[in-house]
Amino acid sequence: DRMQKIRGILTSERLDGILISNPSNIYYLTGYAGFSATEREAFILITPNDAFLFTDGRYSEAAGKHIEHFQLLEISHKTPFGKLFHDAVVKKELSRIGFEANNITYHEYMMLAKSHLTLIPVNLTNLRAIKDQWEIIAIEKACKLGDDVFTYACEHIHAGITEKELAAQIELYLKEHGADAAFRPIIAFGSNASMPHHENTTRKLVDNEFVLFDLGARLDNYCSDMSRTVFHGKPTNQDTQMYDIVLRAQADAISYITQHLEKKKDISAMDVDNASRKVILEHGYPQFSHSLGHGTGIQVHESPSLSPLSKNLLTEGMVFSLEPGIYMADKVGIRIEDLATIQDHTLRILTHSPKELLCL
Amino acid sequence: DRMQKIRGILTSERLDGILISNPSNIYYLTGYAGFSATEREAFILITPNDAFLFTDGRYSEAAGKHIEHFQLLEISHKTPFGKLFHDAVVKKELSRIGFEANNITYHEYMMLAKSHLTLIPVNLTNLRAIKDQWEIIAIEKACKLGDDVFTYACEHIHAGITEKELAAQIELYLKEHGADAAFRPIIAFGSNASMPHHENTTRKLVDNEFVLFDLGARLDNYCSDMSRTVFHGKPTNQDTQMYDIVLRAQADAISYITQHLEKKKDISAMDVDNASRKVILEHGYPQFSHSLGHGTGIQVHESPSLSPLSKNLLTEGMVFSLEPGIYMADKVGIRIEDLATIQDHTLRILTHSPKELLCL
Repeated sequence: DRMQKIRGILTSERLDGILISNPSNIYYLTGYAGFSATEREAFILITPNDAFLFTDGRYSEAAGKHIEHFQLLEISHKTPFGKLFHDAVVKKELSRIGFEANNITYHEYMMLAKSHLTLIPVNLTNLRAIKDQWEIIAIEKACKLGDDVFTYACEHIHAGITEKELAAQIELYLKEHGADAAFRPIIAFGSNASMPHHENTTRKLVDNEFVLFDLGARLDNYCSDMSRTVFHGKPTNQDTQMYDIVLRAQADAISYITQHLEKKKDISAMDVDNASRKVILEHGYPQFSHSLGHGTGIQVHESPSLSPLSKNLLTEGMVFSLEPGIYMADKVGIRIEDLATIQDHTLRILTHSPKELLCL
Repeated sequence: DRMQKIRGILTSERLDGILISNPSNIYYLTGYAGFSATEREAFILITPNDAFLFTDGRYSEAAGKHIEHFQLLEISHKTPFGKLFHDAVVKKELSRIGFEANNITYHEYMMLAKSHLTLIPVNLTNLRAIKDQWEIIAIEKACKLGDDVFTYACEHIHAGITEKELAAQIELYLKEHGADAAFRPIIAFGSNASMPHHENTTRKLVDNEFVLFDLGARLDNYCSDMSRTVFHGKPTNQDTQMYDIVLRAQADAISYITQHLEKKKDISAMDVDNASRKVILEHGYPQFSHSLGHGTGIQVHESPSLSPLSKNLLTEGMVFSLEPGIYMADKVGIRIEDLATIQDHTLRILTHSPKELLCL
């Protein structure tokens, strides 16, 4: 089925083959998760009738055992990738080859270009955007663990604990439950939360400030992502008002989607972003500098994008975050984020941690 | 000092600036570790007199606080990177710009090319190869933790434990000690170890087989890397002989380096690889499919390379692994790996776990 998506692109783009290099796409198409996410350890080449896997001797035995329907071509000092690729292309008489233009480096492109092929930039950004049932179940399990670790972390909130300590508790909990952190958990106390991707510090929690959590689990190769902002102590009226505005901004995004689903209208991701963003602006707060949301799956950030410039439509099977926020430098940061999916023409929220302002 | 390395390249390559995109190089030059290793979240542009940091609103406040001597240019929907870059280049009248050819994607290159600059591919692979004193201390601390976690893991070896369980113990220990795993620990029982980058399974340990560990800690942004192969039960003579051959292959690499240091001769990384590899071959075993070694620092795998095609010389301040192995598909895998550095014309081993065959 996934291979059919690729072969559909071969047909629509009139290609003889596609070279795939993004490790997440390689996992998606082969089911083998052993390759590094940060180093180039494999390529796959898919043609109408063949599928080739290029990897080196560290992986060839494992890949040969775990990956079906791919012919293994082993990269070595004597047979570097460029040579293996060239030989395969000549043998199969391929001439128009697509490649992942947002993944292949300039250096790799120049090496491929030596084979005198017609190289066609291809954008596979949306390849994994629509999830199948199995993938949604996997993401839901990761979300459940994210909810559990949030509950656990809330029990550990007390004056004097540091951001780093709280983050370490979360990472340990995830490890103990057979998962990884999908990304370094962000724990931000008080004004530190004005930086949406704050790096955790040894600053100690004091009374009467917000605590922002942004955390995700990676379980069986699928990610969750959730943000919650709780209060340690007793919030002022202004604290509560700001929180309610963020909650309202998220609620407006949700109802925008829900209403369009009911009316069977197209849902523009850009318009969803705007529906949420304008709530923040209308209340006189600065608009958040990030997108309203992003897809999540094998990668924590993937297609679709819910941003002011997005061209995506939100459709059945997509899994995406909705995460408006209010940020004021050196003062405050509040973000509320859930993962959601569209199933059976209904918006279903996958993260279930409470969203009323928790005072702990 | 590090900026001087870059400015030296500006002079030698007659460049008006270098665009740096590799997140490890950005950390190396700015000291800010907040950017993702897998997503494009920042660029830096260094000219003879200026240094610019391009990042988006998720990071701009934090980067502004933590990164000195860089002018911050904030990427947003209205001011995408391409526009900011173009404006900076026009304002500073830059024309010859180097870029990291093994990091910039084809897509990014095409975007940069719109600015009608002369774009020069630059190879910064060796930028971080020679470590300063502070970096070596950081790596040594990570190695110490690697030794500690290996000792800890050995205490948990017993018939019936699975590879995944042992790996989880290691990851938990590292987390509890304020570190991350530098990479997924590789734990391979018996014939599973014939795959150098084996993915851990739920296979249970039985009596009388080898257990291969390949593990590293990432502590304060620097990595360690070490492999040990121990025996659970009572090894046969052949087991012991194979182990001794691997140990001898490593010893020969070490003495090759030591002798050349004493004679103040150049040390070709390719020749060190060969000195080790030939021990395995001479004893009738297949040569290992991977390199003898690699540099380690901010990344677990970085320059130099100790391989049959390497052009590197091993010099003062480099930190690198020495990791020969014997692998026979479906039968056995043995690898012994240490990290070493050259300091004061002496080879110093940074990992200290025992290397006689441990029977546990």
